[in-house]
Amino acid sequence: MSTQVEKADLFFKLHQEGAALLLLPNAWDVASAKVFEAAGFPAVATTSAGVAFANGYPDGQKISRDEMLSHIKRMASVLNVPLNADIEGGYGPTPADVAATVKGVVEAGAAGINLEDNNGQPNALFGVEAQENRIKAARDASGKALVINARTDVFLHQVGPEASRLEETIFRAKAYLSAGADSIFVPGVVDKATIETLVKAIAAPVNIMAGPGAPSARELFAMGVRRVSVGVAAMLATMGLMREIAHELRDSGTYEHIAKHPYSYGEASLLFSRKSE
Amino acid sequence: MSTQVEKADLFFKLHQEGAALLLLPNAWDVASAKVFEAAGFPAVATTSAGVAFANGYPDGQKISRDEMLSHIKRMASVLNVPLNADIEGGYGPTPADVAATVKGVVEAGAAGINLEDNNGQPNALFGVEAQENRIKAARDASGKALVINARTDVFLHQVGPEASRLEETIFRAKAYLSAGADSIFVPGVVDKATIETLVKAIAAPVNIMAGPGAPSARELFAMGVRRVSVGVAAMLATMGLMREIAHELRDSGTYEHIAKHPYSYGEASLLFSRKSE
Repeated sequence: MSTQVEKADLFFKLHQEGAALLLLPNAWDVASAKVFEAAGFPAVATTSAGVAFANGYPDGQKISRDEMLSHIKRMASVLNVPLNADIEGGYGPTPADVAATVKGVVEAGAAGINLEDNNGQPNALFGVEAQENRIKAARDASGKALVINARTDVFLHQVGPEASRLEETIFRAKAYLSAGADSIFVPGVVDKATIETLVKAIAAPVNIMAGPGAPSARELFAMGVRRVSVGVAAMLATMGLMREIAHELRDSGTYEHIAKHPYSYGEASLLFSRKSE
Repeated sequence: MSTQVEKADLFFKLHQEGAALLLLPNAWDVASAKVFEAAGFPAVATTSAGVAFANGYPDGQKISRDEMLSHIKRMASVLNVPLNADIEGGYGPTPADVAATVKGVVEAGAAGINLEDNNGQPNALFGVEAQENRIKAARDASGKALVINARTDVFLHQVGPEASRLEETIFRAKAYLSAGADSIFVPGVVDKATIETLVKAIAAPVNIMAGPGAPSARELFAMGVRRVSVGVAAMLATMGLMREIAHELRDSGTYEHIAKHPYSYGEASLLFSRKSE
């Protein structure tokens, strides 16, 4: 299996010109990560909301740094492909908090992070300078051994007047790149004109969050998006299926919703057999 | 939230005459357990294979005792209803091993266990006397504060000549009940005549494993079965859905398989909001 440095280097190259456009499925446990890897994706990302839900927490940094890091380690240690770790706001407001989290991420074996500027308050973000310092701390703590995907929540959290959000996003993206980020993640945007403006103005790979209601990954790539991920959408779909299974079992005692999505015990045993070797 | 002792007492009563027949969905993480609880099931069980897969291990006691116990604790601490913990063969062959695991299960807050007589060797089981001593150790370690569902794998692992399996299962069931078990779990049996013979011969609740290919829970209850669970089937179905999602995303960059199983972010946030209060 590749080392963390090798995986981070590979993951960095997956963002560069010449590599295929990067479609990242988001996993929440080892099983989902391995199923995505087996489908041929060159890298897998975590969904912090999905990890939180799988462990019984609401989204929004309610899970502890240690619990998130041990979950990331569990996933990274079993995957052969690079893993991007969603570390929310870095599990603390200060650059030192971010540095501590990032060191843990590298030790856990992940190849990249999402770090957001949402400060946990409604409709508010860290100030630009504060977030620059947090990104610098992440870069200093990781050296080159981590792809830093800087996320700005101007659109997702509807920060400031609507008319100013595009400009504010571009301003923040440039600041975050100067501070050491490798790519920029703008969740909450699916509008074509906005995305096309963003990718022209930002001189680095742009990551857009897709899923039901968003353009297809192909359409997003055609707009100039370099990296597409799906957030918590796949995890929520499995919760939807669990609910369908539960209601059928409760109401009629049958297993039709289970039978509709075959995955054999033998296939699962094979998928995880590496760990026991 | 109820204490472990209160939950164990409630779970014990769910097995007795007068209570509704017990249909137990099997969960592998907090999210699946909470979805099942929200559907109104009076108790939830773990699937040890599902827990193993979610954590990246093959089935069959490859996960460590500590990792299994911390996973059980995570689930039990968030559930309001009793949780039955599948502890495979007890994470060690000796009565002392079983006792250590069972103490950990009680501390983790679970209300019941499955303890199997499969010794990890192909087509072989612990000797009857050895398994009786292991069950006695589980009972001594837990006092009354745990429902002990003794599982025999004579059928599941096709142990001994086919003609002798029914008799061997009944013989073991009686021995395990004398050793302190509360109920008997016979996975691998779906044949009506066999089940009817088992429930007549065993003077305690009988648990049968259901799922695609098995009679419905209603049919099993009509045969005299007192407790029905679904093993790893629901977990495998979500892996099937993950694969469908992955292949569609990979091949066409779209999200139809995600959209088919709606479960909103708001619903998930509500489901886990208790933890943050």
